[in-house]
Amino acid sequence: MSGPIYGRVALIGLGLIASSMFWAMRRAGVAGEVTGYARTRATRETARRIGLCDHICESAAEAAEGADLVVLCVPVGAMGLVAAEIAPVLKAGATLTDVGSVKGAVIAAVAPHLPGAVHFVPAHPLAGTEHSGPESGFAELFDNRWCLIVPTQDTDPEPVARLRAFWEALGANVDCMSAEHHDLVLAVTSHAPHLIAYTMVGVADDLRRVTDSEVIKYSAAGFRDFTRIAASDPTMWRDVFLANKDATLEILGRFTEELFALQRAIRTGDGDHLHAYFTRTRAIRRGIIEAGQDTDSPDFGRGAARR
Amino acid sequence: MSGPIYGRVALIGLGLIASSMFWAMRRAGVAGEVTGYARTRATRETARRIGLCDHICESAAEAAEGADLVVLCVPVGAMGLVAAEIAPVLKAGATLTDVGSVKGAVIAAVAPHLPGAVHFVPAHPLAGTEHSGPESGFAELFDNRWCLIVPTQDTDPEPVARLRAFWEALGANVDCMSAEHHDLVLAVTSHAPHLIAYTMVGVADDLRRVTDSEVIKYSAAGFRDFTRIAASDPTMWRDVFLANKDATLEILGRFTEELFALQRAIRTGDGDHLHAYFTRTRAIRRGIIEAGQDTDSPDFGRGAARR
Repeated sequence: MSGPIYGRVALIGLGLIASSMFWAMRRAGVAGEVTGYARTRATRETARRIGLCDHICESAAEAAEGADLVVLCVPVGAMGLVAAEIAPVLKAGATLTDVGSVKGAVIAAVAPHLPGAVHFVPAHPLAGTEHSGPESGFAELFDNRWCLIVPTQDTDPEPVARLRAFWEALGANVDCMSAEHHDLVLAVTSHAPHLIAYTMVGVADDLRRVTDSEVIKYSAAGFRDFTRIAASDPTMWRDVFLANKDATLEILGRFTEELFALQRAIRTGDGDHLHAYFTRTRAIRRGIIEAGQDTDSPDFGRGAARR
Repeated sequence: MSGPIYGRVALIGLGLIASSMFWAMRRAGVAGEVTGYARTRATRETARRIGLCDHICESAAEAAEGADLVVLCVPVGAMGLVAAEIAPVLKAGATLTDVGSVKGAVIAAVAPHLPGAVHFVPAHPLAGTEHSGPESGFAELFDNRWCLIVPTQDTDPEPVARLRAFWEALGANVDCMSAEHHDLVLAVTSHAPHLIAYTMVGVADDLRRVTDSEVIKYSAAGFRDFTRIAASDPTMWRDVFLANKDATLEILGRFTEELFALQRAIRTGDGDHLHAYFTRTRAIRRGIIEAGQDTDSPDFGRGAARR
């Protein structure tokens, strides 16, 4: 275990990511005192009840005041407002970071509010489950997952290194990249796939000739995987798509081109085109397993006692 | 354990499904003797080496002769040829079945070859992993999964009831439906989702500005689920799409309509439309978990010791 990297940490927003960060910080011993704030009274009361954070505050400013690290864990559409509220109380030399799934829009919304003495180091941990809320967090969420750190052009190297050490202590691997590159990579690996999964589930829901119960009963056949993605938090994802509009639309445009080409192959009976395409995509799957980002145990290891 | 339901069973094709059926049949004690045949010598030798089946034959006809149940486990595009080859040796009163993912095309290809004394009871177990071949099978593959039985109009009730009992003994739940309805349901729950997953993976592979390693490293962010689907057997899936062309194209058409509507909502910043759509799809996910077809343990229960 490391000693504390930040004496006092403030979590603004107390959903899956924030709550997991709290338990992971405790596990690693990298934070002295942790304050928290959430927008609704009900969430704050739940947090107090389950012992999430050392002190739950009644405003974001109260939580952020005097903190060495402030983590914005609210939907990306709310980050500008929160930044405006807490900027006046941020300690000189404090680090402000976030966990948002888009970076360009977050930086544009947050940076203008910040005093020069505050180090703004945006970040994005690539981890999550289909659950939401303060009770959904667990310490292992970030283990062996990637956290992307996106320094702005003004950020000093020391606060970046400190945040990197923090995330590594929480179990993650860390990479740095520009905001523009981050948003494109995530459009490919996450945002467009999520929208596509949402769409497929919506189509199934609409189709009258196939009953809901059939779609549900027979969903082990491939559809199930889409529904897990489509159960993600609607508010978070609405904000992600609105904030990463350009990159997402670019990827979706390429996707529809490819899909129309495959549809044509099906319509014309071009089996060779289909077979070659499917063979190529199988190789990418192998690469993911080898990179340690997944398991090829049957059913992702469901139904077998395993670690 | 049940006593034998079929005295002698022949498995034609020895991939994931056939090999799992063998181990499940053994576990349940529902078959007397099991013969097997696969197209390539290498597969037949592997099967002998691992003890798959009681006797591996050198032709499909040799395996099928005298069998009480013959199961076609070859790609759907090959079923007509196999049926033509074995039809002359099928015992009067034998049941011929299959495990193909489409039913209309299989019935059209197979039924014309069969003598009247043979009971043709098409079926489709909704189960699978991303692996292929004779060594990939395991007895639990069908446990609590659905097997769809698609009686043709000429099928007597008794052979259907017998096959239902057989699949239930292998661990599956059984439903019956028409071929046309089967093909539509599977287009929604499996075929279109598979094509969409293949396409998304292909787009990621093509995109030059995002490296392969980034797509792989950051694939826990949603993309990973698509790649598991896209690692399915290329031959099987080529045949599925060619054989279920009409229903698949119908679903894909609806999909692209929905996708364009969501793209428009993103482009125009219509957050309410997005939020409402995502909220609706989350409910379907809940339904699947409640139907027992999935778990909502974090990461599908990966990384935790569980049954």
